[in-house]
Amino acid sequence: MKIGMNHGAGGEVMGDLISQTVLNNVTKKIVNGGIGLDSLDDSATIPVGDKEIVITTDGHTINPLFFPGGDIGRISAAGTINDISVMGAKPLAITNAMIIQEGFNIDDLDRIMKSMDETCRECDVGIIAGDTKVMEQGKIDKMVIVTTGIGIVDKGKAIRDSTLNVGDKIIISGSVGDHGMSLMSFREGFGFDTDLVSDVAPVYEIVEAALSVGGVTAMKDPTRGGLANSINEMAKKSNVGVLLEDDAIPVKKQVHAVSEMLGIDPYEVANEGKVLMGVKNKNASEVLKAIKNTKYGKEAAIIGEVTEGNRVLMETPIGGTRILEAPVADPVPRVC
Amino acid sequence: MKIGMNHGAGGEVMGDLISQTVLNNVTKKIVNGGIGLDSLDDSATIPVGDKEIVITTDGHTINPLFFPGGDIGRISAAGTINDISVMGAKPLAITNAMIIQEGFNIDDLDRIMKSMDETCRECDVGIIAGDTKVMEQGKIDKMVIVTTGIGIVDKGKAIRDSTLNVGDKIIISGSVGDHGMSLMSFREGFGFDTDLVSDVAPVYEIVEAALSVGGVTAMKDPTRGGLANSINEMAKKSNVGVLLEDDAIPVKKQVHAVSEMLGIDPYEVANEGKVLMGVKNKNASEVLKAIKNTKYGKEAAIIGEVTEGNRVLMETPIGGTRILEAPVADPVPRVC
Repeated sequence: MKIGMNHGAGGEVMGDLISQTVLNNVTKKIVNGGIGLDSLDDSATIPVGDKEIVITTDGHTINPLFFPGGDIGRISAAGTINDISVMGAKPLAITNAMIIQEGFNIDDLDRIMKSMDETCRECDVGIIAGDTKVMEQGKIDKMVIVTTGIGIVDKGKAIRDSTLNVGDKIIISGSVGDHGMSLMSFREGFGFDTDLVSDVAPVYEIVEAALSVGGVTAMKDPTRGGLANSINEMAKKSNVGVLLEDDAIPVKKQVHAVSEMLGIDPYEVANEGKVLMGVKNKNASEVLKAIKNTKYGKEAAIIGEVTEGNRVLMETPIGGTRILEAPVADPVPRVC
Repeated sequence: MKIGMNHGAGGEVMGDLISQTVLNNVTKKIVNGGIGLDSLDDSATIPVGDKEIVITTDGHTINPLFFPGGDIGRISAAGTINDISVMGAKPLAITNAMIIQEGFNIDDLDRIMKSMDETCRECDVGIIAGDTKVMEQGKIDKMVIVTTGIGIVDKGKAIRDSTLNVGDKIIISGSVGDHGMSLMSFREGFGFDTDLVSDVAPVYEIVEAALSVGGVTAMKDPTRGGLANSINEMAKKSNVGVLLEDDAIPVKKQVHAVSEMLGIDPYEVANEGKVLMGVKNKNASEVLKAIKNTKYGKEAAIIGEVTEGNRVLMETPIGGTRILEAPVADPVPRVC
């Protein structure tokens, strides 16, 4: 059997490949009783003393390298910083492995590094180790960046994506679909006509604000497969249902417009600067207020609640209810 | 300016690129007073409580994926395990980010994962986080694996590559050039005629044995650029000279043979299962004995000593002395 493009997408086909080939071959998936590979959470952890080291890795193959609102440097830094942050951990550092095509412009590399650094500086994250490899033309397209994030959290305090409880409110920290839709519209050539930009940003300030209030039960970084994929994954892992309110989910006007032109659901495309979380009912309004006071959380909203059952349902504006499924595969070529 | 192939090699041209473009753009290179990016040591560290987290990352683009004695899975695991080990740290886990070409054979992926896992099991290392991306044909050649290693060491006890002292003995844990020469001879088509295989292996047992004796002052993983590159780097960073004895450096007969056919110096090609270390004179013979008792350390040898000065000199078998320079770039296409 050969690997196809949908094996690399965020949906179910990908999940099957990972579980069969990777998970089945790894003997030691958990170290020191921490969160391991088989949890498929945003990050793994290794308990050491009274702390847990939090670790995540992500490969970035985005095209184009520079896009409205960001570039591969910013997305590579924010991507792993965010996977650490949604564990409730303080991101400390990233490592940066770059595989670069022979002939790549050094001025572009310089811009990418500056952007990666600026993103790290927003939340005082260091870039402490790296590796650079050059591949011949035809052997790699422009560049791949793999970043690994390292953070720290008090032992036993990491927040999972599998711990939603019935009655929790669901909060999204801002508008949905900005990254995926802006990138696709840019590729299709009408990106210049709108002011739609990617939301790519580090979310640690949002997480910190929410945790300072308390009552956060579960968090996830809704990147590949978008809101639809992430909320389904959280519900499934938590053995609960979720009822979302379509009208309550913040979607930018321009995202709606691009979505209709391209026929792509904004709930199914990647976000790169958002947090999806479950919060205890009694804390929800205060957590929302705290998030709204952060730089990237001004459009945060309570978008639904956790229910009994095993499906993610959506109340539509006309009073009906539909099932919100996880996408089977990315609807389009990779955007993250 | 464009990036050329020699920018990705292990020598000086590469060093210049890294320092100019990467280092100059990173604001925070050190976290919590640990070992940072600008040390360009085998790993970085982050002190936390009474421990230091040890981290390293490495991108693997080896061709062919399967070679005598190993494959990209084994080299990806051993590579980062070894960079952690030579810091004197216990490797705990690796993360595994794979970028795979569309159409890649899943049976091959399965073999690679099994090999990676087997290598990790040799020193009880977990594979706790990962990411898989698929790129279209023509956008990547077969696969790239980026592994990040995480280890732990008591605070202040990490062993550097920059702390050689005059009078230290230099020990190499086994024969030199096996990986680079076996891969090159395999590529040239006469690999089937010899029993020469790569030395790719995890070296943690060797490090543990040496540390249990004591007196280890500096260590390095002599991969890209080989012994010549690593010993020069250690000497330069330590502000010392080194005098090596050509006859004392273990080189396999088959490596000599291939070396002469290809006209490539075995000291300048990568090793993937060796440790290069400085040891206090009084401990050297006992450390050597301890290393020789390990699975991969049977051919260990004392190959020279640290001197005043700033050059690596080599006593030749005929009684002369020559300078051993660091290679300016890899002598051949990438082998690690």
